[in-house]
Amino acid sequence: MNMSVRGAGRVAAVIATGVIGRSWIIAFARAGWNVRAWDLDRGTRDRAVAWARDGLESSAGSVTACATLEEALDGVEFVQESGPEQIDAKRAIYAQLDRAAAPDVILASSTSALDMTEIVRGAAGPLAGAARCVTAHPVNPPHVVPVVEILGGEQTSRETIDRAFAVMKEIGQTPVLLNRYVPGFLLNRMQAALVREAMDLLRSGVADADAIDAVIRDGLGLRWTLLGPFGVANTNADGGSREYFTRYGPSFLRLMDDLGPTPAFDATLIEQIGAGTDAMENGATRADIRAWRDRMVLAIRKLKQEDPHP
Amino acid sequence: MNMSVRGAGRVAAVIATGVIGRSWIIAFARAGWNVRAWDLDRGTRDRAVAWARDGLESSAGSVTACATLEEALDGVEFVQESGPEQIDAKRAIYAQLDRAAAPDVILASSTSALDMTEIVRGAAGPLAGAARCVTAHPVNPPHVVPVVEILGGEQTSRETIDRAFAVMKEIGQTPVLLNRYVPGFLLNRMQAALVREAMDLLRSGVADADAIDAVIRDGLGLRWTLLGPFGVANTNADGGSREYFTRYGPSFLRLMDDLGPTPAFDATLIEQIGAGTDAMENGATRADIRAWRDRMVLAIRKLKQEDPHP
Repeated sequence: MNMSVRGAGRVAAVIATGVIGRSWIIAFARAGWNVRAWDLDRGTRDRAVAWARDGLESSAGSVTACATLEEALDGVEFVQESGPEQIDAKRAIYAQLDRAAAPDVILASSTSALDMTEIVRGAAGPLAGAARCVTAHPVNPPHVVPVVEILGGEQTSRETIDRAFAVMKEIGQTPVLLNRYVPGFLLNRMQAALVREAMDLLRSGVADADAIDAVIRDGLGLRWTLLGPFGVANTNADGGSREYFTRYGPSFLRLMDDLGPTPAFDATLIEQIGAGTDAMENGATRADIRAWRDRMVLAIRKLKQEDPHP
Repeated sequence: MNMSVRGAGRVAAVIATGVIGRSWIIAFARAGWNVRAWDLDRGTRDRAVAWARDGLESSAGSVTACATLEEALDGVEFVQESGPEQIDAKRAIYAQLDRAAAPDVILASSTSALDMTEIVRGAAGPLAGAARCVTAHPVNPPHVVPVVEILGGEQTSRETIDRAFAVMKEIGQTPVLLNRYVPGFLLNRMQAALVREAMDLLRSGVADADAIDAVIRDGLGLRWTLLGPFGVANTNADGGSREYFTRYGPSFLRLMDDLGPTPAFDATLIEQIGAGTDAMENGATRADIRAWRDRMVLAIRKLKQEDPHP
């Protein structure tokens, strides 16, 4: 992507540098930010820093491997934490972050599942800095897929949410705001809705896995790259979404009520999916498929940048 | 798209030339087929033929406006019917098609809702040619979005399904096979599953319409253009879809069970969606947004053609 370097001189800490964290290093540094990286495991930290530097152009901000959490937090204005998804681990790291970070530093979590209201309760009581803690949940990998779900816990301040939103926008992500916590947020709920129906169609023998996937990748997905579900409905009738849902409302309702239940999620279904995805791989390695996915997503984003929604 | 003209000399009839039918004219003629177009309404037919000729290059097959159904069926090997979605109207047109078309001509319907088993029962008893009747359901517009759902009724022959599949492939569509009829087929069921959850998230105030749409168009949709739900799961764990669904199975199950019910589908919800899509339009006309959508889908298909799945 053609990212500007208007973030030059700003400093972020990336805390925990696994698959998500290392991708955040690129997202920030590509936008000109200087990144301070830390992980409990030195090997993970060093591999992430080397991997990120490999993927960055010379115009990017600096990437520094830090020996301690305190060192990583020195001089930063924003922390992006991508540690393990267990509540106890999350509480422990937030207690540490809250103690070590200057009071005006935003503490953002990549969590896809946990509620910030619970995290800031802390292992040893509520955090002093609960107001500056916020969820900023990306799609994997965030340096490729831009959307980031922003939501606060009950104690998060409006200013924190606004600042997290602005930082994400500034580095070229697409922040979206949730008004409150729900399990799975927006993204994983909508994904689970689609996957549940896909599984039910497979399990009940309506079609094979490749046919179900093809309907998405050569059908619905092509539109959903450009317009969300409401935007698609809006273009599907001359009178827009109001006409669409008024005219097709009754048949839509019937269809929604006919959708399958959560299918039996057993070894048979997993093996059915596994055999299906083996066939789709067609001999390619998953690393090659992932690399293809990432370069194609970036190419599609470039198309959208060059010819944006009117 | 760079379509070959290996279909040169083959002849298809496009019966009923509304928004879907006129798009089929382009899909066939672009692949070198000669197209015979007919509609009960001469104005609709003439506008469709003029619109299609406008969108076709000189290498395309011929497009002929036919005065009668019989004339339209003369010399064709394949009929694509896109008439009204009422069972009585469908039965009437299939009775006519079955009488007028030579016995080896495939009669394919664009229906998104009706079961071919019911259509071939006929208004005046079962059709003689039920074995050559098949559903070939496209996404709107089919000359832009390639997927076509192929399914037979109980009396459809295997040969008919194979021939319809081959014809769709030959003209550059992506045919997928359904083993049996279910309401909404694959495509509209999966779309309804996503839309239902999107509506519930909007209705329950978790986020606004633009945030919900953005999660799709700048998030999930970017991956779904390349990989379906099973293919995405397969790239989300180093050990592939088996590892992914084994490791995340329990949390996936909890999330699937937590999804919203069909929301109250009333004027309040429709107005909430309408206000959301008004804001997304941001002053652009729906015609401009549709034109953008179509040229972007074609550009993305070109990217996928030039750099296909490994």
